[in-house]
Amino acid sequence: MSTSTTTLREPASLVQWAKTSMGSAMREMSSLVSTPGMLSFALGLPATELLPLAACRVAAAQTLATDHQVLQYQKRPEPLKRHLRELLASRGVNCREDQIYLTTGAQQAIHLLVNLLLNQGGQVLLEDLTYEGVHHAILPSHPQVLVVPTDPEIGMNVDAVEAQLAQGARPAFIYTVTDGQNPLGISLSQAARNRLVALARHFQIPIIEDDVFGYLNYDGPALPPMRALDEEWVFYLGSFSKILSPALRIGWIVAPDAFGPALSFLKHASDLDVSTLAELTLSAYLDTGELPAHLAILRKEYGIRRDTMLQALESHFPPEARWTKPSSGMFIWVELPGEINTVELLKMAVETERVAFMPGAFFGLDGSGGARNGLRLNFTHCSPEQIQDGVGRLAKVLKELRG
Amino acid sequence: MSTSTTTLREPASLVQWAKTSMGSAMREMSSLVSTPGMLSFALGLPATELLPLAACRVAAAQTLATDHQVLQYQKRPEPLKRHLRELLASRGVNCREDQIYLTTGAQQAIHLLVNLLLNQGGQVLLEDLTYEGVHHAILPSHPQVLVVPTDPEIGMNVDAVEAQLAQGARPAFIYTVTDGQNPLGISLSQAARNRLVALARHFQIPIIEDDVFGYLNYDGPALPPMRALDEEWVFYLGSFSKILSPALRIGWIVAPDAFGPALSFLKHASDLDVSTLAELTLSAYLDTGELPAHLAILRKEYGIRRDTMLQALESHFPPEARWTKPSSGMFIWVELPGEINTVELLKMAVETERVAFMPGAFFGLDGSGGARNGLRLNFTHCSPEQIQDGVGRLAKVLKELRG
Repeated sequence: MSTSTTTLREPASLVQWAKTSMGSAMREMSSLVSTPGMLSFALGLPATELLPLAACRVAAAQTLATDHQVLQYQKRPEPLKRHLRELLASRGVNCREDQIYLTTGAQQAIHLLVNLLLNQGGQVLLEDLTYEGVHHAILPSHPQVLVVPTDPEIGMNVDAVEAQLAQGARPAFIYTVTDGQNPLGISLSQAARNRLVALARHFQIPIIEDDVFGYLNYDGPALPPMRALDEEWVFYLGSFSKILSPALRIGWIVAPDAFGPALSFLKHASDLDVSTLAELTLSAYLDTGELPAHLAILRKEYGIRRDTMLQALESHFPPEARWTKPSSGMFIWVELPGEINTVELLKMAVETERVAFMPGAFFGLDGSGGARNGLRLNFTHCSPEQIQDGVGRLAKVLKELRG
Repeated sequence: MSTSTTTLREPASLVQWAKTSMGSAMREMSSLVSTPGMLSFALGLPATELLPLAACRVAAAQTLATDHQVLQYQKRPEPLKRHLRELLASRGVNCREDQIYLTTGAQQAIHLLVNLLLNQGGQVLLEDLTYEGVHHAILPSHPQVLVVPTDPEIGMNVDAVEAQLAQGARPAFIYTVTDGQNPLGISLSQAARNRLVALARHFQIPIIEDDVFGYLNYDGPALPPMRALDEEWVFYLGSFSKILSPALRIGWIVAPDAFGPALSFLKHASDLDVSTLAELTLSAYLDTGELPAHLAILRKEYGIRRDTMLQALESHFPPEARWTKPSSGMFIWVELPGEINTVELLKMAVETERVAFMPGAFFGLDGSGGARNGLRLNFTHCSPEQIQDGVGRLAKVLKELRG
């Protein structure tokens, strides 16, 4: 088991950064996977056809029915927070409404917490493969990034976390996705959750627990998140983007009480408030009580797609390949034989078969290192037929690449 | 003419900040002015009854009519940017669509530009009375704040700006509201605009030009903003909050080309994107071509309300009081005889007459200094009848306070 420390380069300014290899590698990959007409397993998109359009139309019409005040500046988050409190309780997270902070999606939740907790040049503790949005959020703070391995079998390596902390590391926070980790698809065991919380308490290190995938579980209920174990050190965040509609851009933070006033200040300084139109429309949708049935549909359909993709991998991919079998979330992580560079594979797949995925390099710290032979496949966006077809085409490209 | 330098206190963290006197003074004032049942001239609110509810309802219904894709993650800003380009051209700002960046209101525009331009501990140049949201946005960077006077007759004192720069100041940016300045209501002369742009070019200092009020002009067209004079050093920002609906939370930046990639990165790292629901609804509203007529209604009605407030001040306020006569925006600035502390006046006015305004202290750097005898009155939110009534009641409280 190896632990390591990486210091992000310190560009003179973000203008410089945009010209770096990290910036351009990211842009190149992003532009490749978003080529039009692509059969894409690349992004973390919900199934478009399952987005509740009619219900949102009704909710928007109700919101805009008679009261001009809905178009005014206003803070009226209580109805949505009441719904959220119920939703969170169904995940085992019990909180008061005044502990909930609305955000412009989970990305803003992460960005706010980074700005709340991290000083310039401070330490943060991340997995070696993690959500790239965290890298983006921390970059302007030029942090010292403490990296621990994340493993396709167990997820975040908690032994490595403990070793770092025992050796004196004092990160501003530990970030992890507890269920359906991005990009691995892995969920932490109960023992790992317990240990991480115990470490956070012992060393007094906040945890940023990203639970955007926790409601998408396919083998029975997911374990309760770490916030259910601790209210003092765990910042819990989530979003309606994966479970209802990304276009709303509404997420949330459940914060420890001590940080409330500062978090309110930061949100207000960032953009005053979430879109009231989106917030009230969402609240009107939740008033209908349709969310549980909608979630049941997603779980059933995404479960079928996950199984379809696992079967297609089994049928088409070489026996040396390994992949995760996620019980939550949107992603399967595949590790190919070590000689395969998945950035090269992506270029070929896009050109010859018009199939896209995210290469592992995307989830490492500098956009080039890390899991050069890994790839992330999304199984929620494409239909089962497209999944069978696309995985087959990808296997064909892989075969060609290996000669 | 005095120029001065103030260093914001450097709290160990934002959690500490929230406990400071600045934090609590701000919270106290904010909570006073938002007491329910108040006749309030405090906030920069549009007239609720003029918000285009029916048109927004139709636009939302169209947006959510048939295409599930509208609820998906997507970047489809082109239609809105086309509308924006036209709107900006009508202000004399000619730009390409790829120079426009959508933001979650003007506050996010400011926040992004602060994060783009300001390093930790760097210098910024502000007026001694300015929009408090700028103070909030810069605070986490612990800047050295260079302050220049702003004058109820001429607005930002450009002599003082030149003096600071000539003495070696190199702020990360100069922030100003060119038209209908907040809180003074003043618009810069053409000569002042020319000189500021010349200084920005000569000393290579970016200007953040906040034009949220530039479309609300009551004595013929406002002068073109500074962005019309310079595309290399002027960051121009605006919002639909003051001219259409705050609930959308959609604003914009027009940026110099050199900063584009870094600004895109920062926006993406902050929250990925604006609310797509709000963006597409806004775009559908603008498709109707109703905005110019709506703006004409606002200009006419707000012009009446401005005149009503000016007349009420003339009728009721003591002869020693002075106030601005704004040609743009939402605010009149009143200076009372020097012995009056407007924070005390606010407390009395709220308690005895249930009338609210923003005391001048709110717009100074530390929430307590600056214009202790000044107050800002909003003239757009209340009806002409309420304005006459409220200004009279305020004058009554003032008389009582002076004994």
